[in-house]
Amino acid sequence: MASISPLSVDEQIALVTSDDPHHPANLICELCRNFYTLGWVTGTGGGISIRQDDNIYIAPSGVQKERLHPSHMFVLSHSANTYLRHPTPLKPSACTPLFLAAYNARGAGACIHTHSHWAVLATLINRGKKTFRIANAEMIKGIPSPATGGYHGYHDTLEIPIIENTAKEEDLRESLEKAIEEYPNTSAVLVRRHGVYVWGDTVWKAKTQAECYDYLFQLAVEMAKLGLDPAGPIDPVEDES
Amino acid sequence: MASISPLSVDEQIALVTSDDPHHPANLICELCRNFYTLGWVTGTGGGISIRQDDNIYIAPSGVQKERLHPSHMFVLSHSANTYLRHPTPLKPSACTPLFLAAYNARGAGACIHTHSHWAVLATLINRGKKTFRIANAEMIKGIPSPATGGYHGYHDTLEIPIIENTAKEEDLRESLEKAIEEYPNTSAVLVRRHGVYVWGDTVWKAKTQAECYDYLFQLAVEMAKLGLDPAGPIDPVEDES
Amino acid sequence: MASISPLSVDEQIALVTSDDPHHPANLICELCRNFYTLGWVTGTGGGISIRQDDNIYIAPSGVQKERLHPSHMFVLSHSANTYLRHPTPLKPSACTPLFLAAYNARGAGACIHTHSHWAVLATLINRGKKTFRIANAEMIKGIPSPATGGYHGYHDTLEIPIIENTAKEEDLRESLEKAIEEYPNTSAVLVRRHGVYVWGDTVWKAKTQAECYDYLFQLAVEMAKLGLDPAGPIDPVEDES
Amino acid sequence: MASISPLSVDEQIALVTSDDPHHPANLICELCRNFYTLGWVTGTGGGISIRQDDNIYIAPSGVQKERLHPSHMFVLSHSANTYLRHPTPLKPSACTPLFLAAYNARGAGACIHTHSHWAVLATLINRGKKTFRIANAEMIKGIPSPATGGYHGYHDTLEIPIIENTAKEEDLRESLEKAIEEYPNTSAVLVRRHGVYVWGDTVWKAKTQAECYDYLFQLAVEMAKLGLDPAGPIDPVEDES
Repeated sequence: MASISPLSVDEQIALVTSDDPHHPANLICELCRNFYTLGWVTGTGGGISIRQDDNIYIAPSGVQKERLHPSHMFVLSHSANTYLRHPTPLKPSACTPLFLAAYNARGAGACIHTHSHWAVLATLINRGKKTFRIANAEMIKGIPSPATGGYHGYHDTLEIPIIENTAKEEDLRESLEKAIEEYPNTSAVLVRRHGVYVWGDTVWKAKTQAECYDYLFQLAVEMAKLGLDPAGPIDPVEDES
Repeated sequence: MASISPLSVDEQIALVTSDDPHHPANLICELCRNFYTLGWVTGTGGGISIRQDDNIYIAPSGVQKERLHPSHMFVLSHSANTYLRHPTPLKPSACTPLFLAAYNARGAGACIHTHSHWAVLATLINRGKKTFRIANAEMIKGIPSPATGGYHGYHDTLEIPIIENTAKEEDLRESLEKAIEEYPNTSAVLVRRHGVYVWGDTVWKAKTQAECYDYLFQLAVEMAKLGLDPAGPIDPVEDES
Repeated sequence: MASISPLSVDEQIALVTSDDPHHPANLICELCRNFYTLGWVTGTGGGISIRQDDNIYIAPSGVQKERLHPSHMFVLSHSANTYLRHPTPLKPSACTPLFLAAYNARGAGACIHTHSHWAVLATLINRGKKTFRIANAEMIKGIPSPATGGYHGYHDTLEIPIIENTAKEEDLRESLEKAIEEYPNTSAVLVRRHGVYVWGDTVWKAKTQAECYDYLFQLAVEMAKLGLDPAGPIDPVEDES
Repeated sequence: MASISPLSVDEQIALVTSDDPHHPANLICELCRNFYTLGWVTGTGGGISIRQDDNIYIAPSGVQKERLHPSHMFVLSHSANTYLRHPTPLKPSACTPLFLAAYNARGAGACIHTHSHWAVLATLINRGKKTFRIANAEMIKGIPSPATGGYHGYHDTLEIPIIENTAKEEDLRESLEKAIEEYPNTSAVLVRRHGVYVWGDTVWKAKTQAECYDYLFQLAVEMAKLGLDPAGPIDPVEDES
């Protein structure tokens, strides 16, 4: 991917400079501070990317996610596959090809990647399984169902593909793309012993879904600790209890 | 419920505009930020409603609860069952009929709905049971006893009805109303695999009680993890220990 | 205890009005906000009292501890056992006689009462026992040893009396005083299924100790979950591991 | 170590006075507030030291770590082994010789010491073992591999030495130095039932690594609770799952 921008220096600065707190360059900073308090982006891991029309904003690799500044942002032209802004001496995020997978295959408006313990533990309580499954939980209703254009129902079994982690993050791309293709109804892919990728039509939908997924991962892990099956049926209510 | 307000635009704006931080429209925003840090309203779920005389303030559906603005508030006339304010293009909360159940049956001043993991897990450690029960915990004393006009005692067994969740939130109304009627001494109803509804005479009482309930749910779940019965008796103290 | 103050209204206001953030009336507000984030004073429970010479500052009963204002403070003359300030219509804390027990018997400069889950669970993993015991933990070194004038050592077994809870908080006084007398080396008393009382020579020492105790309670509970004995010996190190 | 500074009072004040938020004296205060919210420095325990060329900044012993002020900082000349600043009446941190071990042996730019529960529990789930081991976790990639000049890989087994705690913190120095020597590939040393020492080339690398280590300790403890081996192999993926 070309790292020489077709834009002038002033144009590049303009891309990430705005008084609007909802501008992608500002919002990425604010949301990463939020995610840090949730334990999603500790140790510089994880992150968020926002697409504004053809411009894709991504935080750099290896920086303190709770201390980002708009000037740290990389900006990519989606159609030209070129960096419009590549701030020296920062490195582009290793998540870039993975975020692109969701932008390309699903037309997402934003992608979130977390290293949440709950996501990792959700892959570990499903040893050797290709999917994470949970059913009969209210928060499932916060997860869209791209196949139907609506949302999952309370009684639906939410199924999220788990792909195996690779030594290099960029090598996840192929299996991530395959999972996106094989699970048309998912808006997230878990990566074993690593974390989760979540995408949504807008940044707010992506954030809402990331919170719903994380909630469900935590619920499943806590259920496992209590000896309960997250995908199991609802127990019949006893007459006398 | 009519969504065309009998009020002028200026009157509608005045309903949610105040410099007083204790005005319901301001307080809902502030308390939702507080609840977000407690994990009660993640993923746009949960919320709070405050009644000021005949006016019932409710946050809209599907918005980031930690980012509410007073201008987002719906206002309902309790007596007329009409929206005094229905801000376009927001959607009224699906909790509205459930909050109304507590306003109607108990004359509550505020209602809180959380998706706290502790509330959900409290329903799951009581598989097939119609109630959650805990006894001999100091925080039980923070829970009112509407039947007596006072509060629960330390040695009382606090019993909270658990109703079964439904596919659509509004369909909970009937069973919620029934639980409120059948358990005259409760100020909360748990919804299996969903969360909890709590109400109180004032917003501060509702908040205090919601915190006490959540505390007790957490205590019960932690006791279950340690193999202890939350509703069990106090162990006799050993002479030599 | 007399609730009519010998002071003029202006003198009473002066007692709780100061620009100094370290003034007891200000510090109680700030520390309660801190304690709220730690889960120690949820649901209006728990609190802190600070003694400045003969004046004892105590937050009122039943108020949101994270929203205290200096004007809410009660002030007690220790020597005269009279309220110097009794702000209408607030109620004095039910902890007052218990804080006084530590002021009287130990000359404490501040007392903290928490409802921390860790404190309650620490009493529950010691079913039927009269004390909580933990050994061989670095944080034990943060706990003073009044009997020696120094601090506990790493290898010492820290022993904290557990008293049984009573239906009314003020009825704890007798057993709290007895525990203080019978355990001259303790600076805290656990109350079964209720919480903990901690005191220290100064407000900062009391806060430090309350944090050390809470840390040790959490450690003990987590050890119990992992099947380890908090008061057990250090395992010998294997030659080949 | 000499506590009489060769510097004038004005020079000493200048050492800790700066408008730059990245000045070590300011950064230590800010990061300790951050660490307090993570539970790393509760009860005045733990801390951070930053080296700026020959000047080593260290917070004092026994102070509230979330309430540090730049004027509290001790400054040490690394080459002269002399205090350039020894603010009366504060006491130097007992960690000083331990931080120096990492500065001397590894040329570190910053050292972090935490009492995180996860670090302590990580030593307790490895009863009698000389090392903590974890494998096949993405966050391992955030840990440098000084022996190779690069970083650990996803499939590497991360091995961290565990030394036994001593009654006095300064007595840890010998075994800490020995562990640093015997484990040339480590950038952290766990202390049984006490916490962890982490160092890095810069303050940001040290912070990132401390967060990665803490994350991995938590993951290992949560895996142990779920009956999983943190250093075990990846389960083969089932054909039909």
